[in-house]
Amino acid sequence: MSEKTTESLEALRTQIDAVDQQLLDLLRQRLDLVKQVGHVKHEAGLPIYAPEREAVMLSKRRAEAEEIGVEPQLIEDVLRRLMRESYRSENKSGFKQLNPDCGDIVIIGGKGHMGQLFTEMFRLSGYRVRCLGEGDWEQAPKWFEQAGVIIVTVPISATCELIRQRLTELPPHCILADLTSIKSEPLQAMMKSHKGPVVGFHPMFGGDVKSLAKQIIVVCHGRGQVQYQWLIQQMEIWGASLVEACANEHDEAMQTVQALRHFSTFAYGVALFDSQADVEKLLQYSSPIYRLELAMVGRLFAQNPKLYADIIYAQTKSIEKISSYANSYQSLLSLLESGDREKFINKFIEVSNYLGDFAQQFQQESRVLLQSAADMINNR
Amino acid sequence: MSEKTTESLEALRTQIDAVDQQLLDLLRQRLDLVKQVGHVKHEAGLPIYAPEREAVMLSKRRAEAEEIGVEPQLIEDVLRRLMRESYRSENKSGFKQLNPDCGDIVIIGGKGHMGQLFTEMFRLSGYRVRCLGEGDWEQAPKWFEQAGVIIVTVPISATCELIRQRLTELPPHCILADLTSIKSEPLQAMMKSHKGPVVGFHPMFGGDVKSLAKQIIVVCHGRGQVQYQWLIQQMEIWGASLVEACANEHDEAMQTVQALRHFSTFAYGVALFDSQADVEKLLQYSSPIYRLELAMVGRLFAQNPKLYADIIYAQTKSIEKISSYANSYQSLLSLLESGDREKFINKFIEVSNYLGDFAQQFQQESRVLLQSAADMINNR
Repeated sequence: MSEKTTESLEALRTQIDAVDQQLLDLLRQRLDLVKQVGHVKHEAGLPIYAPEREAVMLSKRRAEAEEIGVEPQLIEDVLRRLMRESYRSENKSGFKQLNPDCGDIVIIGGKGHMGQLFTEMFRLSGYRVRCLGEGDWEQAPKWFEQAGVIIVTVPISATCELIRQRLTELPPHCILADLTSIKSEPLQAMMKSHKGPVVGFHPMFGGDVKSLAKQIIVVCHGRGQVQYQWLIQQMEIWGASLVEACANEHDEAMQTVQALRHFSTFAYGVALFDSQADVEKLLQYSSPIYRLELAMVGRLFAQNPKLYADIIYAQTKSIEKISSYANSYQSLLSLLESGDREKFINKFIEVSNYLGDFAQQFQQESRVLLQSAADMINNR
Repeated sequence: MSEKTTESLEALRTQIDAVDQQLLDLLRQRLDLVKQVGHVKHEAGLPIYAPEREAVMLSKRRAEAEEIGVEPQLIEDVLRRLMRESYRSENKSGFKQLNPDCGDIVIIGGKGHMGQLFTEMFRLSGYRVRCLGEGDWEQAPKWFEQAGVIIVTVPISATCELIRQRLTELPPHCILADLTSIKSEPLQAMMKSHKGPVVGFHPMFGGDVKSLAKQIIVVCHGRGQVQYQWLIQQMEIWGASLVEACANEHDEAMQTVQALRHFSTFAYGVALFDSQADVEKLLQYSSPIYRLELAMVGRLFAQNPKLYADIIYAQTKSIEKISSYANSYQSLLSLLESGDREKFINKFIEVSNYLGDFAQQFQQESRVLLQSAADMINNR
């Protein structure tokens, strides 16, 4: 490199460093301002996530960016990242307590990931929370007596039995809820065991999220919505989007989602193991998309095996779905072995037509994600 | 909402808007500065991607962020997003031409996505590029005579035959290269057809990337590395990371990656189709992780069916891998149907141990990606 080049680069980099420092100061300022917004909302009991305000703000910024020749998507991505940070820090200032007189919140299974998360959210909102673990059943009657809400979040395989055997004598005014990833059976069990308000929730995220902002919680109504409406609003204050669903419909979709997809990912991990594939080498040749897929396989196997078996074994219908997938796979394999390329292509087109506009939408979405993936993984 | 709350929120939001405008100005300034860096590098023929400089810069910013109480990951993510933008715009200012005297670049199959991308990169670097499509074979002898580099990027099923039949009389000094996703056979075919320099590349990305910065290109050496070394350096100037590999080893890994994984994704799409699952409804209940997986399925079916069949049918060994996966799947299904939960859990633990530290690493990576996914998809 010539001396002139080195000098020019050094001078420019010094200027970039100066801009970066200003940038950092602005990020600090913005986070502080949003924190103040959080305090005001906290006082007023407003949800931390305001989709309309966000949409308006982003579209203004995009227009301003366009005017000065900055790619609108750039400012949107930067602001979204900043907002994510803000939501995380808003947890720290706590949340408005919507129903101070409701009594205790008892979380059965509060020591699991999801239980811990909800325990924290309730505590941040000023509620007294009691976590009922396996060794605490002696205390249960006393705790239930003072409870306004009882939430069941134990392994899926134990949920219904626990409800049927242990939760038959709750105070009639008490709200009984669960966080299980299937809804129909637990909801039926709760309705049978308890005469008071009953509601089923399915948080559509892992217990490792840092904030509930923008996260989806499916709600399946049981009985006494008027009495538990505040609980739904409390979750909205945490930033969650509550989506109403019919329990059966939810479970049907979940079987496809969880059992089928997870199982095929599971089988992929087993196939890698069976062939003793060299993961290090696979990674070396991995494009972002494959790296991402491998990450999904790895993520599954970083979970608790028992919880995973619970999900798979939770419903007999899952096994039907899984075996129907196995059939699709086998018939495709025969097609492949027959060497009938034309037929293979026709099958492809058939599925492509069935997915219709979704295929395009998915491609668009995955492109954005793959860019993030490339940013990250190519910097190992 | 009380009047006081409304007023407080309005006042804070006005301040946030002001900060955002300063932020936008800074982004503009930074992009301009990096553009100037691009010009200097262009003149000097330096690669646009400087990993060490990036790493040093990021670690300084992280430290500064920590000092003023900003999450270090926040500034890193924002800067990475900015850098991605810069790389994209650096394409516009063109690239240093490393070998002006090399003659023409002939790209056989230059009208496909990957061909177009490389055509653009060579043109941005000042080379004359000729795209040889199916109807242009009459011109071929004349074009080949003036060519310094001939790059084959036709569908995988046609590659070897084309090399064997059409590329037997190239000028001896001319570099013959290909961009096929398998390497062993095309490389052998090129070595046999051509006596001059031969090299195989496998770009590990789709033709839809906007910049080659940080993208990986696998290189399998054939013959005459001294003569084609400049070509590798030219790709590095574009920002790519060149990774050397042995062709057989590469293909072995690719079979696992492409055939196996892609095929299982393909089968998943078919299974959805066979059961006529309601995609709209699936999406409604989709957590970010499933949305991401569904996006991968959709992405596959947005591709050209013929290209896809080509990849699957490219190597007979792929079919072996696919059928071994089918066996893993079937035996897991039997295990599931037997109801032997203990055995299922043991299998899980076995694979988990085999993945070892990778499982944790993948989980970490996927968490970051899922956050981006959640930011994006929950704002539909």
